[in-house]
Amino acid sequence: MEFIEGGICAATGFTASGVHCGIRKNRDKKDLSLILSEVKAAAAATYTTNLVKGAPLKVTKDHISDGYATAVICNSGNANTCNANGIEIAEQMSTLLAEKLGIDAKDVVVASTGVIGQPLDIEPIKNGIPELIAKLSKDGCADAAEGIMTTDTVKKEVAVEFEIGGKTCKMGGIAKGSGMIHPNMATMLVFITTDVAISPKMLQQALQSDIKETFNMVSVDGDTSTNDMVTVLANGMAGNKTIETDNDDFKAFMTALNTITVHLCRMIAGDGEGATKLLECKVVNAKDKETAKTVAKSVVCSSLLKAAMFGADANWGRVLCAIGYSGADVDVDKIDVAFKSQKGTIPVCENGAGIEFSEEIAKEILLEKEIEIDINLNDGEENSTAWGCDLTYDYVKINGDYRT
Amino acid sequence: MEFIEGGICAATGFTASGVHCGIRKNRDKKDLSLILSEVKAAAAATYTTNLVKGAPLKVTKDHISDGYATAVICNSGNANTCNANGIEIAEQMSTLLAEKLGIDAKDVVVASTGVIGQPLDIEPIKNGIPELIAKLSKDGCADAAEGIMTTDTVKKEVAVEFEIGGKTCKMGGIAKGSGMIHPNMATMLVFITTDVAISPKMLQQALQSDIKETFNMVSVDGDTSTNDMVTVLANGMAGNKTIETDNDDFKAFMTALNTITVHLCRMIAGDGEGATKLLECKVVNAKDKETAKTVAKSVVCSSLLKAAMFGADANWGRVLCAIGYSGADVDVDKIDVAFKSQKGTIPVCENGAGIEFSEEIAKEILLEKEIEIDINLNDGEENSTAWGCDLTYDYVKINGDYRT
Repeated sequence: MEFIEGGICAATGFTASGVHCGIRKNRDKKDLSLILSEVKAAAAATYTTNLVKGAPLKVTKDHISDGYATAVICNSGNANTCNANGIEIAEQMSTLLAEKLGIDAKDVVVASTGVIGQPLDIEPIKNGIPELIAKLSKDGCADAAEGIMTTDTVKKEVAVEFEIGGKTCKMGGIAKGSGMIHPNMATMLVFITTDVAISPKMLQQALQSDIKETFNMVSVDGDTSTNDMVTVLANGMAGNKTIETDNDDFKAFMTALNTITVHLCRMIAGDGEGATKLLECKVVNAKDKETAKTVAKSVVCSSLLKAAMFGADANWGRVLCAIGYSGADVDVDKIDVAFKSQKGTIPVCENGAGIEFSEEIAKEILLEKEIEIDINLNDGEENSTAWGCDLTYDYVKINGDYRT
Repeated sequence: MEFIEGGICAATGFTASGVHCGIRKNRDKKDLSLILSEVKAAAAATYTTNLVKGAPLKVTKDHISDGYATAVICNSGNANTCNANGIEIAEQMSTLLAEKLGIDAKDVVVASTGVIGQPLDIEPIKNGIPELIAKLSKDGCADAAEGIMTTDTVKKEVAVEFEIGGKTCKMGGIAKGSGMIHPNMATMLVFITTDVAISPKMLQQALQSDIKETFNMVSVDGDTSTNDMVTVLANGMAGNKTIETDNDDFKAFMTALNTITVHLCRMIAGDGEGATKLLECKVVNAKDKETAKTVAKSVVCSSLLKAAMFGADANWGRVLCAIGYSGADVDVDKIDVAFKSQKGTIPVCENGAGIEFSEEIAKEILLEKEIEIDINLNDGEENSTAWGCDLTYDYVKINGDYRT
């Protein structure tokens, strides 16, 4: 497998675009994005588990219930959530786009992100759709990635090339997500495209299985958004034999999907609101998978540890504390902890108790941009990884006055 | 019931003291506290549910297993947790104190708070005990309250006077707790004294019942400490008929206890690390108690809402979001939300959707030091309250480099 350029336009048959239509006041910030497949694509999606769900999620769920979609439209600047007419507006977004594209409104995936509880005006979207369609191109990925950003500081796109049954296939993704991130069964907004031929059923199975180990293991601030959604469109234009069962081709597909999703997870966590560092917590030798996941996630969610990482302070007691309250059944006296970065590795705790270490070397390691927190439970053979970021002044600043 | 002066020394037969013994480098900061009852007192305690437990908790649990205690010793600056010789040190603290006081070491409650995973040297404690005993007095409450403080910015003490069976009784408490606060079945360090005559069994029952609605409903940062503990000593010197059953006297005792604990909860939350505001989330008309509690706690734990409150931003969508991911089974379309302070009340959401409101008035209300978040689930008759604080730059600053 090889990383390539092109993001969501890398796969054969996909084009994209992004424009400023006027939902946001800042004219330099794109706020409406489109992804289009030349032919109808198998579609799969997962959604937030938050009981308060954005109207677009409900509409999308209905639209792709037949397993297929052709286009994705997504606005930023307004989440279209907790609005009395939210469903109506989301349906209008689909219908207005479908009419101009000459497709069925039921083949449109619709998404929104931004502030909750403010009515979304359809006018700017209606006025922006013609330009959005006019700008569709194979080079449009960056614009589309930009159009879905909110407090993100970097565009998040990735693509890979791989082989299935002798055919060259491609898969790419874009994501947005920086705050209100603590996905559960789905996450922030992620759009993945591929030219692999795969049945809707196997596509949904692949996605649901993958997110448990990827997006559901990311946390920026413990707040599960109302609008989280991951969608995959697979249009079959690579020409491989359609994947209909859990065979070797499906495994190759899963590997490609996991490469895309892990890459996006790391980008989302590293670009967490206000973050200066990516935290990757690797738990090994747990007695079962659930224990490994619970421990890894509890550690990346600890506000105290996140603040310590911001200060490059090797305060490993907070790692032990977060393991202890995680709810996982672990033997505290067997736990080893080490901090790691490209500057090296420093063990700080063995058998649940502190060991002597150089604070200077620890500081040097923790001043890097990507920090690994290695936890060995010495209690079995299961592993898991979770991703998070540090807690900084800027997180507070960004969220202290997000709406103005 | 009447609030009175005197804190933990208010009740007949209790004296206290606090000194600087040298665990902390700063000579102006007291780091060792003592509470003594003239006669053996009924004792009850609840402890953290964190699997990583401070050594002092294990020793205290053993010591008060017979239901009685005479003295409490507590140091700050070092949690005596995750140390290979922790139990030994906690036992030494008890023994050294008991010898000088001429009591049984098994009648000593021992507690520690501070950094995790650094060996606790017994020498300063040993050297400090004579001065600690020499300074015991009815005026020693403030010193004792100071000796247990870590990042707290204010001393937390309270006392009340009430009547049981015609006898005047008193009860007082001190607490410490500012960060790593998200108690579960127990909390931070709280010491309560009373001269009420009550059996150890009824005392434990009163405490366990009370904390579910008080300390367990406080969260500063979602991190459940390894050293949380609440203890009550009741020495019977008020001369009331000993409370042995769930009678009217027990109810009067529970009311007094709840007055003390709610007061301390508010002080702890309001003095959360870096906090500028106390948040009080009142959930009413839930279909059951558990739903009310789950919703209230989820809201005060939301990093996003906490940051919004810091910015005095009436971002009520974050309240809905936190209710939605709380895990409670609520009907989103029935929820009303209002913000309240001494400047007034402003409804912001009705039936799960936003309503028009004046941002200026909302700002004025939210700029106050004590904010109430009122949530009406319109789905039953159960209520609950949770306490928290805002998330500020200073929380990050304090925890970015706590150890240095």
